[in-house]
Amino acid sequence: MAAISPENEHPVKAFGWAARDTSGVLSPFNFSRRATGEKDVRLKVLYCGICHTDLHCARNDWGFSTYPLVPGHEIAGVVTEVGSKVTKCKVGDKVGVGCFVGSCGSCDDCSNDLENYCTKFILTYPGVYHDGTPTYGGYSDIMVADEHFVICFPENMPLDSGAPLLCAGITVYSPMKYYGLNKPGSHLGVVGLGGLGHVAVKFAKAFGLKVTVISTSPSKKEEALKHLGADSFLVSKDPDQMKAAVGTMDGIIDTVSAFHPIMPLIDLLRSHGKLIMVGAPEKPLELPVFPLLMGRKMVAGSGAGGLKETQEMIEFAAKHKITADIEVIPMDYVNKAMERLSKGDVKYRFVIDVANTLTAA
Amino acid sequence: MAAISPENEHPVKAFGWAARDTSGVLSPFNFSRRATGEKDVRLKVLYCGICHTDLHCARNDWGFSTYPLVPGHEIAGVVTEVGSKVTKCKVGDKVGVGCFVGSCGSCDDCSNDLENYCTKFILTYPGVYHDGTPTYGGYSDIMVADEHFVICFPENMPLDSGAPLLCAGITVYSPMKYYGLNKPGSHLGVVGLGGLGHVAVKFAKAFGLKVTVISTSPSKKEEALKHLGADSFLVSKDPDQMKAAVGTMDGIIDTVSAFHPIMPLIDLLRSHGKLIMVGAPEKPLELPVFPLLMGRKMVAGSGAGGLKETQEMIEFAAKHKITADIEVIPMDYVNKAMERLSKGDVKYRFVIDVANTLTAA
Repeated sequence: MAAISPENEHPVKAFGWAARDTSGVLSPFNFSRRATGEKDVRLKVLYCGICHTDLHCARNDWGFSTYPLVPGHEIAGVVTEVGSKVTKCKVGDKVGVGCFVGSCGSCDDCSNDLENYCTKFILTYPGVYHDGTPTYGGYSDIMVADEHFVICFPENMPLDSGAPLLCAGITVYSPMKYYGLNKPGSHLGVVGLGGLGHVAVKFAKAFGLKVTVISTSPSKKEEALKHLGADSFLVSKDPDQMKAAVGTMDGIIDTVSAFHPIMPLIDLLRSHGKLIMVGAPEKPLELPVFPLLMGRKMVAGSGAGGLKETQEMIEFAAKHKITADIEVIPMDYVNKAMERLSKGDVKYRFVIDVANTLTAA
Repeated sequence: MAAISPENEHPVKAFGWAARDTSGVLSPFNFSRRATGEKDVRLKVLYCGICHTDLHCARNDWGFSTYPLVPGHEIAGVVTEVGSKVTKCKVGDKVGVGCFVGSCGSCDDCSNDLENYCTKFILTYPGVYHDGTPTYGGYSDIMVADEHFVICFPENMPLDSGAPLLCAGITVYSPMKYYGLNKPGSHLGVVGLGGLGHVAVKFAKAFGLKVTVISTSPSKKEEALKHLGADSFLVSKDPDQMKAAVGTMDGIIDTVSAFHPIMPLIDLLRSHGKLIMVGAPEKPLELPVFPLLMGRKMVAGSGAGGLKETQEMIEFAAKHKITADIEVIPMDYVNKAMERLSKGDVKYRFVIDVANTLTAA
């Protein structure tokens, strides 16, 4: 009897690109997916966004990666098979899979449509599925997921520029709603104009907010104002600009995942203002407490979103014609793309044209 | 014409104890109070609590003290004179003055009964009143304040053990309400069992919460459980106890004003849990961001409370028979009391018996 390997542990042949070690370098990889269970949806992957998390996980920056590792949790495709009990979609439907493919289903968070905070959530990758086998992401030809974790794409939502909404989109949409930063007329700061930041600006404008982009780089000003529709732009390294904006913001979405000072951001908030972190710096940040007390301010976090809210988000995005700004790349460009991503050299999301460029080994 | 001095700048003679310099040592001090204006209430001070802030301000730890400095913002007494337009109280009524004696009256915060967050609030001490003269606190024989900043004591609220509620009480009551940590059955941690912490336990129990006291010192366990009525006690330096409590709390009120690690406290929170800082460490704390994201947790601040809520708090306290545990001292013990307070050697609040022990120079 042959040893169990990624290629033979399941009955359905699959093919993708995987990182093999902490170099993070991706290369072609033969593996397998489970047969479509009665509640499962199988899809042909058409597009997959490249999230910064993919880079972190490929290199095991966070310490929980397992190899071979197939990244990708901004997956869009078309349904090719559904299990007998699937009601959410049918063959031919346009669907997506985001950050999660499973959770316990019974805890308080699962009961409240907050699978993303279930302590037993199963990441789309790198995770261990209910059957004990590793999960593999969307840099691959096919995907299979329980219908609960499948998002239905609205008819007018493009699959390529819509795919990044499944992570970048919901990650900024969810905290805006939860923390009440979606009230028309209120003033939101968005720190960092990358994959998350640029869609944060779009959602915020759709909610009717006044939006100020805060960036270390003055070079992004024209882009922020003219192209993305932000109302103003602050260079965080300019003390005069920052001083003039003190106490003006109701909330700030901070998308920066590098270590950075948050004291100047807390100062930008009005009383009762909220600084929401959605990026995850590896080192602890410095938290001044006195300004929090003086203005009843908060520093809070938010991670992705539950499935129900993700569906709501993509319908809201479709209604308001919100998509990510993307650069579509072929599969064999992925390592170069990762390198460029690590330097912030992309406007604003790479999306892999999986169906047209992934050729089986 | 004589130079303007504290003794002659106002028509009403007053006497108290003041710090003269950053040594923080207090000594007898002759000064004056303004005549009772049409909206003013004059009171004979009977009791004044000693807040940790008094110690900080006497020594100018926060850099905004002015000397001579008369501390005291937990002031309880009896009305001796009211202005012609005062409607809130009459001569003979039992009243109090807390942290504030003025604010702009027109900003959003003032309009929302949040004078404590008005950027132009006037501290009971050390501040500058609307007329340009320094404010002096309650370590003194008489006090005068605009009726808006006067709190009416309920009939059954003692003046001595009720006085500390005007700062310590509202400082913990307000965030419990604002951050939704007053829901019966939810689990609140209280860090630090001092002036603020011990009343936090009492309010939390009155709200119907499960309360866990978290302290570095195992010696406070019996006191916390048997005397204050906490449900459980955690020694923060015991890794096993802390580990067993991970993910169990809906909120934590952190009253500690010394530098301390908050990562272990964030770990004690459930998803969506709230760590509320009411103490003000001088150095920034270390804030780990990843745990905030993973559990949608927040670290937030709260400072004192508005006048309307302070009145509500003291009525709630009276109804639930909540007072501070106090050690009543004579005025001339104040320097020794400050010394003991700096070592945490008090259960739980010193209150100066002003009327009986302050003898005019």
